Amino acid sequence: MKLSHRQEEIVNIVKIGQPVTSEELAEKLGVTRAALRADLAILTMLGILDAKPKVGYVYLGEQKNFEVIDKVSKVLAKEIMSKPITVSEETMVYDAIVFLFLNDVGTLFVENNGALVGAISRKDFLKIAIGGTDIHKVPVGVIMTRMPNIICGFAEDKAYDLAKKIIEHEVDSIPIVEKIEKEDAGRNQYKVIGKVSKTNITKLFVKLGEEH
Amino acid sequence: MKLSHRQEEIVNIVKIGQPVTSEELAEKLGVTRAALRADLAILTMLGILDAKPKVGYVYLGEQKNFEVIDKVSKVLAKEIMSKPITVSEETMVYDAIVFLFLNDVGTLFVENNGALVGAISRKDFLKIAIGGTDIHKVPVGVIMTRMPNIICGFAEDKAYDLAKKIIEHEVDSIPIVEKIEKEDAGRNQYKVIGKVSKTNITKLFVKLGEEH
Repeated sequence: MKLSHRQEEIVNIVKIGQPVTSEELAEKLGVTRAALRADLAILTMLGILDAKPKVGYVYLGEQKNFEVIDKVSKVLAKEIMSKPITVSEETMVYDAIVFLFLNDVGTLFVENNGALVGAISRKDFLKIAIGGTDIHKVPVGVIMTRMPNIICGFAEDKAYDLAKKIIEHEVDSIPIVEKIEKEDAGRNQYKVIGKVSKTNITKLFVKLGEEH
Repeated sequence: MKLSHRQEEIVNIVKIGQPVTSEELAEKLGVTRAALRADLAILTMLGILDAKPKVGYVYLGEQKNFEVIDKVSKVLAKEIMSKPITVSEETMVYDAIVFLFLNDVGTLFVENNGALVGAISRKDFLKIAIGGTDIHKVPVGVIMTRMPNIICGFAEDKAYDLAKKIIEHEVDSIPIVEKIEKEDAGRNQYKVIGKVSKTNITKLFVKLGEEH
């Protein structure tokens, strides 16, 4: 919901000269008091202005609610994504797990020549670690989820749509990618430039609440 | 933001007899058209009514935004929590990990005589699994995070406050507990009745977006 030009003008006049009576406002804007009635009703209802009897209008502050609302649907992946942590396909599973802990992340992305080829989550690692495999001798390339089976997102995607994908596909984290010019056997290739996880979404939720 | 009694009346008249002109509305409410101007402006600005030139006012629907806003700050833990999965202190680490996979959760809570005594996350399990410990011979009681070092919440807590705790304390999941009457050596005891994780918060975020 956007304020009209007239409403913005009223807010600005009150901000500078408060308290301002409706007579003064009508005079400054060159209109009748009746013409201002609807706009003043809207501005007080929105909590932007307060009408003090026998004093005039005072400024209370921008209506925060509308900003919050906009954000639920407008925040983009690029605004909340964090740094992706990547390893090569040849990295041994044990070393990859140590790297996971060092970086304190829940998912590693696997790159080959700068292109995303796989992903491995803490859950995948745990399954392998208790499965009797020698994790010092098996490279991540063998156990990772391989492209094109990875749910990806783009920097311009809405955070909301990524949250939906996370829930629908039951993943912890989505790599944010960019298309690379070169192709691999006719298949598109992508570079990982970030990631959006349940942690990023939870942080966004907290941020929205704070602003509210 | 609540509608005034007059605004509610206008909405009801339009709902029943749409399209309704401002002349008809003024007549039904026994007021002048000028007196309705502000209310009609507010209702169209809120997207509840639409003014169709030469036709009259039609009903578009309740303004959903305001419900969404309320929810960011009003949803309670009990509305979004999921079932907690618990094991006993004597459960071997290997069996607990299998149980974790069977239930497809990220954290197990440990109970003793119906009271919460510990918690173990996928991360804790992974650390142990690669550490050279014989996970078939060590019980979870040895490796779990022990009360009172577990961040807990209550059913009546706001989801927002739990999301904040999850981020601040860097945990994946918070057990929702209830105080038990009996005490253990003068220390309060709690029963786990649910859990709120980053997944629950992400689901809530998606739900808010849908309603929006």
